[in-house]
Amino acid sequence: MTILGEMLIGSRAVKGSNGPIHAINPATNETLEPVFAGGTEADVDSAVELAWDAFASYRETAPEARATFLETCADEILALGDELIERAVAESGLPRARIEGERGRTMGQLRLFASVVRAGNYLDARIDPAMPDREPMPRADLRMRMIPLGPVAVFGASNFPLAFSVAGGDTASALAAGCPVVVKAHSAHPGTSELVGRALQKAVAKCNLHEGVFSLIFGAGNVVGQALVAHPRIKAVGFTGSRSGGTALMNIAANRPEPIPVYAEMSSINPVFLMPQALKARGEAIAKGFIGSLQMGAGQFCTNPGLVFAQEGEDLDNFLKVAAEELSQAGTQTMLTPGIHKAYCSGMEQLKGNSRVTEVATGQDSDQPNQCQAGLFVTTAEDFLADESLSAEVFGSTSLVVKCKSVDDFARVADQMEGQLTATLQLDDGDHDATRKLLPVLEYRAGRILCNGYPTGVEVCHAMVHGGPYPATSDSRTTSVGSLAIQRYVRPVCYQDLPQELMPESLKDGNPQGIRRLVDGQDQR
Amino acid sequence: MTILGEMLIGSRAVKGSNGPIHAINPATNETLEPVFAGGTEADVDSAVELAWDAFASYRETAPEARATFLETCADEILALGDELIERAVAESGLPRARIEGERGRTMGQLRLFASVVRAGNYLDARIDPAMPDREPMPRADLRMRMIPLGPVAVFGASNFPLAFSVAGGDTASALAAGCPVVVKAHSAHPGTSELVGRALQKAVAKCNLHEGVFSLIFGAGNVVGQALVAHPRIKAVGFTGSRSGGTALMNIAANRPEPIPVYAEMSSINPVFLMPQALKARGEAIAKGFIGSLQMGAGQFCTNPGLVFAQEGEDLDNFLKVAAEELSQAGTQTMLTPGIHKAYCSGMEQLKGNSRVTEVATGQDSDQPNQCQAGLFVTTAEDFLADESLSAEVFGSTSLVVKCKSVDDFARVADQMEGQLTATLQLDDGDHDATRKLLPVLEYRAGRILCNGYPTGVEVCHAMVHGGPYPATSDSRTTSVGSLAIQRYVRPVCYQDLPQELMPESLKDGNPQGIRRLVDGQDQR
Repeated sequence: MTILGEMLIGSRAVKGSNGPIHAINPATNETLEPVFAGGTEADVDSAVELAWDAFASYRETAPEARATFLETCADEILALGDELIERAVAESGLPRARIEGERGRTMGQLRLFASVVRAGNYLDARIDPAMPDREPMPRADLRMRMIPLGPVAVFGASNFPLAFSVAGGDTASALAAGCPVVVKAHSAHPGTSELVGRALQKAVAKCNLHEGVFSLIFGAGNVVGQALVAHPRIKAVGFTGSRSGGTALMNIAANRPEPIPVYAEMSSINPVFLMPQALKARGEAIAKGFIGSLQMGAGQFCTNPGLVFAQEGEDLDNFLKVAAEELSQAGTQTMLTPGIHKAYCSGMEQLKGNSRVTEVATGQDSDQPNQCQAGLFVTTAEDFLADESLSAEVFGSTSLVVKCKSVDDFARVADQMEGQLTATLQLDDGDHDATRKLLPVLEYRAGRILCNGYPTGVEVCHAMVHGGPYPATSDSRTTSVGSLAIQRYVRPVCYQDLPQELMPESLKDGNPQGIRRLVDGQDQR
Repeated sequence: MTILGEMLIGSRAVKGSNGPIHAINPATNETLEPVFAGGTEADVDSAVELAWDAFASYRETAPEARATFLETCADEILALGDELIERAVAESGLPRARIEGERGRTMGQLRLFASVVRAGNYLDARIDPAMPDREPMPRADLRMRMIPLGPVAVFGASNFPLAFSVAGGDTASALAAGCPVVVKAHSAHPGTSELVGRALQKAVAKCNLHEGVFSLIFGAGNVVGQALVAHPRIKAVGFTGSRSGGTALMNIAANRPEPIPVYAEMSSINPVFLMPQALKARGEAIAKGFIGSLQMGAGQFCTNPGLVFAQEGEDLDNFLKVAAEELSQAGTQTMLTPGIHKAYCSGMEQLKGNSRVTEVATGQDSDQPNQCQAGLFVTTAEDFLADESLSAEVFGSTSLVVKCKSVDDFARVADQMEGQLTATLQLDDGDHDATRKLLPVLEYRAGRILCNGYPTGVEVCHAMVHGGPYPATSDSRTTSVGSLAIQRYVRPVCYQDLPQELMPESLKDGNPQGIRRLVDGQDQR
């Protein structure tokens, strides 16, 4: 398979006409071949109408067929071999080991959702049997299941060119739910996108599905994205990216004649709370772990620990000393795109120029292109509360330590914070009482609370929540990572006195699919 | 207990200052005592801040305590005795038997949610145990549960003065989820609202809960409603009413600094499909049942059958003949408010004046105030598709029969319809093949599909869906009736490596609450 610079509309491969879009190797600033070009509104319309046509049959696929399709997608991605790895490394500047790991995660996500489809819990099947003799009124036979929403638009993310892009978590969960997907590729990795797109296109054909189950469109500006979200046949949107990008899509979706849900994962600074006993007992180890987390992937994670709360005093001074030493020894890393690098430098400049903020340390410098020079800064609780700009995400390896007078300040300051994906606690047994007061505030502000670890590294499993109150996401009721993500793309339908012959398999008498069902309020299988 | 014309802000009773609001007996157009007055933005702020204060402790109530509170609410409503029934009859014009039934339903809903809270399924508890030896990376201990969103604003509906008003389904499900509630009373039944509000206020006190768990505010214009939805401490909205009212709240919510979910149940014309074999075999019985459903409660149900599809020919002619006879014998019924009556008359006039529409029959006339004179009209499929106004809801006992050339037209026309709460099929065994083609279209357009019944009468149970695609509701992923409604007011939180001592009860080792939990992807109890 080679990269031809083509969009994929159903089973066709199509050259875009809105160009050029050049992939750039951020490690060298060299332009990568071939040249790509974006789609038009007509291309979007073709892809979405195909998706709509495909919806009729795809939503009716049996669980085993849909699960096999998801697994075939994973197999076809693996079959792309080294070409995928090399291209993704070249387009992202990320190390080979990271990209290989991310491919594994991408395949793992597809397989997890295959298991979710087979298990059938996500259907939330419910049966309230008829009670013909009930007084004063008989009860009808009532059954409920979840059905897919319809075609879904997915926006590839820059920072996970595999795991949150063309075949990433949004696509996998939408396909698992029974929704055809139209992906808008991220222009930072069009070649990676085309390769993965061709793998999915192949899986669609191998599994004899309608070609419209998957399409891939390029677009450099906003035309393609806006047309996708505004298209009347699109019924939900998955997005990972900036706050401005996400809120723009939310506005388009809310102002459609038929508003639709947008699942945008946007902005988070992921506070870390250094509880006093832990800081005293393990300050040095915590500092080293923290700098490791901060440096990971040049800080280009939604869960990068961008904020640290600690009580002022000797223990914090020691922590900062170790952290500064670690950071100043840290080499630079290539950032994903020149644009992200530029925004990072601008954010760093703003922090350096802010009179409420003191620089603790910076990482080593480099004269290579698009290098992330890590930064650690310190401020006080009062200054943090007084200056909104200090709560803004700086996407990259930078973090701000907020000195508090006492541990009681943690909850007071946290209560003023915007919604977050994560909140981290470094705590020892002696910190439990103080933590107990803080926990409700953190639950209310974050989607995931973690102890004695670091927020980077998001496990793909059943209990994961990669979500949180606005602006961390557009919809705190959901997650974009883990098996619960499938719930974003379904809605309930109730069947009253439907004849068995017409009943969906999942609700038939005798439970032919062997799934969990709530019968008269009790679990049955 | 007597009605004093007071709002309830926490444990206080407060006279409004934006008045007057007069309750009117629609059967006589007489003004009912006492006079009420609406709240100010300051009243809204007081109630919401109290709700916020209450949230900290209310969300932490043990399942048994919260369930007992819901049951106490039901008991206190019953304890209001005949005063409640008489006042609700006077304020709504609805018959006593209907109001007594609705009180039973209201109490039943509160008790259903008590059982839901005790069962704990709604928490969707999940545990992915730690795998310290996993290669290449260990897995942390990850646990997930649902937590309440925060204070909820509920808007009382005019057409269910008990079951979808102060202590109705929205309030019951929000309280069950752990969310304090601030109700904006519907101005059509302020006395009923005050009585029920005082019952809830009493239940809060009896159960030793924070006074802010429940408040009730009046408001004649839009000030109170807008202030409620815009208040930064309000985290979700429950509403049943008009499309214009619901979309106005959606817009306010979407444009807040922090957008919040609005669950608005708005507009539906509930198509009924008369499949050919059923129409041939049972046309007369179907016609009688249909007119009965159309007449019920003066058609003032969200699920009133406002649209009928049938194939033209002798069988339909017979159906129309019987329906016309039934309808012309039907007496009038008092509508809920002079405003609703006026809007109904205007809708009827528009239908009568529409050249695409023919009048089949009207019910008997009356010179009493606010009487609903039922109406039945007929049009063709092409005329229906050509005139959008024919898809608009006329709230009351009127319905439009759409004559189709063939049964194949059903799906074609239905595919053009907006979202609906229900779709009804009258079908016999010989209709199964034709129904099989129609079902996917109906699933896609409606929240509930029912066979050989009528859409009026919504069972409160686990499998019910009273929801549907826009504009039937603002959020097709939910229901406002039945136990699933609790999911509207919760969101997931994940705990990573949280010490057992700090762990929420529902996620603790050993499952102390004995609830269903998904452990490593498998159900355990």
